[in-house]
Amino acid sequence: MRTQVAIIGSGPSGLLLGQLLNQQGINNIILDRVSPDYILGRIRAGVIEQGFVDLMTEAGVAERMLREGEIHHEVDIAVHGEYHSINLLQLTGGKSVTVYGQTEITQDLMDARNASAQISYYGAENVAPHDMNSDNPYVTFEKDGETFRIDCDYIAGCDGSHGICRQSIPAGVLTEYERVYPFGWLGLLSDTPPVNFELIYVKSDEGFALCSKRSASRSRYYLQVPLDEKVENWSDDRFWTELKNRLPDDAADRLVTGPSIEKSIAPLRSFVVEPMQYGRMFLLGDAAHIVPPTGAKGLNLAASDVNTLYRILVKTYKEGRQDLAARYSEIALRRVWNGVRFSWWMTNMLHHFYSDSIEDKIRDSELNFFLASEHRRRILAEQYVGLPYEDIE
Amino acid sequence: MRTQVAIIGSGPSGLLLGQLLNQQGINNIILDRVSPDYILGRIRAGVIEQGFVDLMTEAGVAERMLREGEIHHEVDIAVHGEYHSINLLQLTGGKSVTVYGQTEITQDLMDARNASAQISYYGAENVAPHDMNSDNPYVTFEKDGETFRIDCDYIAGCDGSHGICRQSIPAGVLTEYERVYPFGWLGLLSDTPPVNFELIYVKSDEGFALCSKRSASRSRYYLQVPLDEKVENWSDDRFWTELKNRLPDDAADRLVTGPSIEKSIAPLRSFVVEPMQYGRMFLLGDAAHIVPPTGAKGLNLAASDVNTLYRILVKTYKEGRQDLAARYSEIALRRVWNGVRFSWWMTNMLHHFYSDSIEDKIRDSELNFFLASEHRRRILAEQYVGLPYEDIE
Repeated sequence: MRTQVAIIGSGPSGLLLGQLLNQQGINNIILDRVSPDYILGRIRAGVIEQGFVDLMTEAGVAERMLREGEIHHEVDIAVHGEYHSINLLQLTGGKSVTVYGQTEITQDLMDARNASAQISYYGAENVAPHDMNSDNPYVTFEKDGETFRIDCDYIAGCDGSHGICRQSIPAGVLTEYERVYPFGWLGLLSDTPPVNFELIYVKSDEGFALCSKRSASRSRYYLQVPLDEKVENWSDDRFWTELKNRLPDDAADRLVTGPSIEKSIAPLRSFVVEPMQYGRMFLLGDAAHIVPPTGAKGLNLAASDVNTLYRILVKTYKEGRQDLAARYSEIALRRVWNGVRFSWWMTNMLHHFYSDSIEDKIRDSELNFFLASEHRRRILAEQYVGLPYEDIE
Repeated sequence: MRTQVAIIGSGPSGLLLGQLLNQQGINNIILDRVSPDYILGRIRAGVIEQGFVDLMTEAGVAERMLREGEIHHEVDIAVHGEYHSINLLQLTGGKSVTVYGQTEITQDLMDARNASAQISYYGAENVAPHDMNSDNPYVTFEKDGETFRIDCDYIAGCDGSHGICRQSIPAGVLTEYERVYPFGWLGLLSDTPPVNFELIYVKSDEGFALCSKRSASRSRYYLQVPLDEKVENWSDDRFWTELKNRLPDDAADRLVTGPSIEKSIAPLRSFVVEPMQYGRMFLLGDAAHIVPPTGAKGLNLAASDVNTLYRILVKTYKEGRQDLAARYSEIALRRVWNGVRFSWWMTNMLHHFYSDSIEDKIRDSELNFFLASEHRRRILAEQYVGLPYEDIE
């Protein structure tokens, strides 16, 4: 087989890239190890930057997102019981975020893929990129006992943090930057009405909490827990009691509890590899970087990488800009580091680090400082709604 | 002897507090272990916030500062050879900083002290505060073989980081917060014209440098050096060569070198004690907190403490507000932590940490982010000129 772009990984990044390229007449094949149902079963992020919504619109797949997604003009930060409202719309000159589940985005993108002429292989085993540092890269995989080879111009590694793409890059090429936080997030999903229309980020003496949502009838709550905490120790009752304990009084009084649909603990870490490419293979999203969920940048940074690569490939194929592909990493990383820094900053300021050090005092002072006046809240707001995508010149 | 306020330490904090109280008819005695000449021989800070200038004016000692001090409307930050000008005046709605040496301030305050009826004891040995946690504190000291006792209402500890006041507070009362940086500043003073009218903060691959000044003909330059560096290893020639190496090309070309008058290495650390008082004894300035010199907040934070204590004491004596003295620490610390955080932030963003970790990448991204647009530079500017003093209610 031959295609222009082989896309490894069929999560939202791979699917969105495939859809955008398809619209420009650039052929691509998507490969994934697992099945569509498995991918749709993942419970993930749901706060979408305006730039990502615009990119979905450009890809022709935003219809349901625009209809069903909730537009949020505000985000609330409660510090020791006191609310600080961040008016995104006003502070950013008209920008907002959309609450729409990652599962829904993936579904919409899969529907578009199915309606297109582009090929996808699910259940592809032993996927492997080859000769990425040559002008003739190719990908091999096995399916139903048969071995396939896809010759291509470029390979897009959209296969997540544990995927084969990053692993296939020779030792010594990548530099890894990592920080592991001394806590995780215990998340609970329930079919209960959210405690608040706006998301509430909560800093309390007992640690961080987040009141989030998937829809008007489905809530997603999180509690900061120590890194060694086990989900088995957390009955639904214990979760709701501790959440009420951390929430401002009015929110605790208003909270509607119910049985959990899902409950799990995720560790928090910041991770980036540089460069985000190896010859003609590009790394996108989780394949290149992981951020803690505070501030909801993970999926949005993946979309940002898709935007960068998409625009580079269009200029490469349509305008003959052979110079641009080599610059993908450099261009993508500028925005990636901004997102990594914002997630880091929000995580630092809002969590309890289980210590009483000068760092803790600095973090408290920083949060107070940035919440204390409008022009400082703008710094928070402009990053929360997402910094502009860089133009590719 | 009896006085209202016993002030231990005759640096700028003690002298300014004494002068302000004197103007309000509040009697005070200043004690210092050393001589006036020794104090005037210290080479220290020279960038003065507007609030400090205003406080000097209120104290009636700003005449020479206003005449001889240089008003700076800008500060320059050069990152890898590229200049970023921070227009303080424009970004803060009319505020600026004044460049005027600490030695000059001390001289002006000593002149005012000598012209006043208030008593000072220099060369006071074995100064010791007593019964600070009672309603009847007193201070003892020896001079010329004689022992003295000063009964007072309050004791102001303006005696620096190694002074007796903080040391006299019983174990367990204070919590200490500290961070030691992995580098120091090698400073050189010379009678050469400054390379630039505005101060230049320099971030380079070789580390931080600062082009500062004391006057139109006296320059003060600094180089970041590793913590274990020895001043004996730095000839004047080596200093000038390394400075040129770190400066942007145009500044390196313009630099006028000459023999050093003084050359020394100072380690950088952030240090705060909480609370900043013990009963009727208050800690001010370096006695309670140390900041790295990046951003020039040390002396300005001391002035801020003087302002807080002065206004509390005036309300205490003139309006009978007996509740306020107990709140000195709480009020002073809010502004102190802001200054500690700003010095920390500037130090982090501008220095080379001799590592290649995710923290280094975050610091680089943060500097680029905050320099990249006007509303973000305002965050830097408003802190550089000094946050407003808090009203005492």
